[in-house]
Amino acid sequence: MGWVFDIEDPRAARAAWSRIAEPGDREAGALVQSLGPTGALRWLIGDARGRDAGAVAAKHRERWRNRLEGLDPRRELHALGALGGWLLIPEDEGWPEGLNDLGAEAPFCLWVRAAEGLAPVLGQRLCPSVSVVGSRASSAYGELVTATMAGDLAGRGVTIVSGGAFGIDAAAHRAALGAGGLTLAVMAGGVDRLYPLGNERLLAAVASEGAVISELPPGAAPRRERFLARNRLIAALGQVTVVTEAAWRSGAHRTAHVAAELLRPVAAVPGPVTAAQSAGCHRLIRQGVATLVTGADEVRELMAPLGLVTLEDPVVAKGPLDGLPDSDRQVLDSLPLRRGATVTAVVVASGLATPQVMASLGRLERAGRAVQAGGLWRKARSGGGP
Amino acid sequence: MGWVFDIEDPRAARAAWSRIAEPGDREAGALVQSLGPTGALRWLIGDARGRDAGAVAAKHRERWRNRLEGLDPRRELHALGALGGWLLIPEDEGWPEGLNDLGAEAPFCLWVRAAEGLAPVLGQRLCPSVSVVGSRASSAYGELVTATMAGDLAGRGVTIVSGGAFGIDAAAHRAALGAGGLTLAVMAGGVDRLYPLGNERLLAAVASEGAVISELPPGAAPRRERFLARNRLIAALGQVTVVTEAAWRSGAHRTAHVAAELLRPVAAVPGPVTAAQSAGCHRLIRQGVATLVTGADEVRELMAPLGLVTLEDPVVAKGPLDGLPDSDRQVLDSLPLRRGATVTAVVVASGLATPQVMASLGRLERAGRAVQAGGLWRKARSGGGP
Repeated sequence: MGWVFDIEDPRAARAAWSRIAEPGDREAGALVQSLGPTGALRWLIGDARGRDAGAVAAKHRERWRNRLEGLDPRRELHALGALGGWLLIPEDEGWPEGLNDLGAEAPFCLWVRAAEGLAPVLGQRLCPSVSVVGSRASSAYGELVTATMAGDLAGRGVTIVSGGAFGIDAAAHRAALGAGGLTLAVMAGGVDRLYPLGNERLLAAVASEGAVISELPPGAAPRRERFLARNRLIAALGQVTVVTEAAWRSGAHRTAHVAAELLRPVAAVPGPVTAAQSAGCHRLIRQGVATLVTGADEVRELMAPLGLVTLEDPVVAKGPLDGLPDSDRQVLDSLPLRRGATVTAVVVASGLATPQVMASLGRLERAGRAVQAGGLWRKARSGGGP
Repeated sequence: MGWVFDIEDPRAARAAWSRIAEPGDREAGALVQSLGPTGALRWLIGDARGRDAGAVAAKHRERWRNRLEGLDPRRELHALGALGGWLLIPEDEGWPEGLNDLGAEAPFCLWVRAAEGLAPVLGQRLCPSVSVVGSRASSAYGELVTATMAGDLAGRGVTIVSGGAFGIDAAAHRAALGAGGLTLAVMAGGVDRLYPLGNERLLAAVASEGAVISELPPGAAPRRERFLARNRLIAALGQVTVVTEAAWRSGAHRTAHVAAELLRPVAAVPGPVTAAQSAGCHRLIRQGVATLVTGADEVRELMAPLGLVTLEDPVVAKGPLDGLPDSDRQVLDSLPLRRGATVTAVVVASGLATPQVMASLGRLERAGRAVQAGGLWRKARSGGGP
């Protein structure tokens, strides 16, 4: 076989491997990790300088060799260049480090269409990042919750990663763009085709203001298995994965499990138990895979497990007896509203000891909660403080 | 002091204690547990046969003695009898055993208004039981979820315990009655006044078909501290406590914590994160106090931690590729819909080895998923099974 490209170039060799092996091919990943992309190609094409790849790789050699014919990453790199794209490889400084957690299932390279200047620093811009995922068949509630959460996070500098699909994914990308934040869409096919077609305009905006990426070369079709494999990249790229709305059975549910296996914090937003669209979120929480979250602050808390973010309880209206010791509350509750009661009567009604009741009555009187007239005690009408 | 009733009678002595001490009075509880109700009374009134109650009790003696004047449980027992009621004491067979888990805070007795024949076997009828609690200011969603869950549980023989309040409590009692099941309302005042007045008809129905109970004697007013104390009985009477809808700050939230301290399983139903009425449920789940539940079956599972109830996953529509091995799915996804492809083309498209592809094509053809014509393979149009 003659080689039309320079297999010594790690960039070209990795681009070639992204076409030879399907996403998530563990054997190919292990091979490239052990011999390097060039070394692995040498062995595959039977180059004299090729080292032995071992028995496991040998078993899979035929299926990889089937894809050697017509292989020319220069053509695909050219197609990428025509789109203003960029190939990112693990040797680059901008490589998203989180992807390395995938081990032998890490992608060989990333085909990137991004805002100017973003691709070379993509990895740096993924810290902090949150992957927001959910079902395509979303409800108005799910879209509202997603938009609120993604917009809030993006507005605070968190990069929003999602899959570019209809429903929840689209709501997440759109909110991030709307908040002037950064967002990243991970495709299941080549970045030359913005899939699904119905989201083409949204994804074009993501590509020009954020990034659209894929581990597959231009021309690769999005296929079912590739969607499933793509989900592992979404799980690995976010420091936290949030499922904002998902049916019992959904890709988002699987992405959440992958994120949990990667030891990433996983969060899920609850919804009405009467809505099938939230069943997947409830399932993840019940399984202990996901933490229940109700808003962006609780997601941010998961990103800073060492206490960098501290949550405050929501502000709720204070009750009229807040801040009173228990015995004062009990005495106040025992006081009549109209006709006054003797201290003895209050002692009997409250069930407390006489000295305690007298001390409480003094405090309540000073606080304007109780009034006394002629030795008879009753509640102050306003019930207010001083 | 002269005694108008027989303090040797444990029933009368316990009835007396339920008036002398406020609900949840730990010192009184410990005293009665140590000397017995009669012995504790002897000590309190300074009877010559009274044993020493110790230093702790001595400190509280004055406040209990303040309530001795005019004490006559016969009067209260008479009032109860006029309502067709029944006094239940721990020595009775029908005493709800769960209350003993409260230790020194267990009630001295229960004043019961119940359906005929129920009071003497009340404890037995509380196995199985679920306490259903929530906010008074409930939403339509919360009431629907409560009614569905309580009705389903009651219809399967589970006694529904609640507090008789507006909102969630009322929905729970009403659904239990509607399902022909048993329900129990725990009052914060005497059972002679069905509180709140707006629920009088509902509570009268509960008293005639189920039971309305209190640890306080007839005539006792429902007061704030007594509501809080009452909640511990609700928590102790249910084998499981479910919060179906509760605001961030609510009595139900507190009841859930008490149930958890009693080592009872606690469950909470999620709702929209946009609704303040569900914030307390989400808080309990986030705190790890409550398990998220979406329906009655998941509550029943909590009642049988040893696996007596097994949950089945909900029935969801099967996808077209369900049950196929991964490689078959991959091959099927790689097949064209219209013009056929050669085996070699399918091998390249799928990324699988030739023998694997050929085996898959054979299986898919037999299953009616793939068709072959002139050595060219394509997807079967129907996509259906054999």
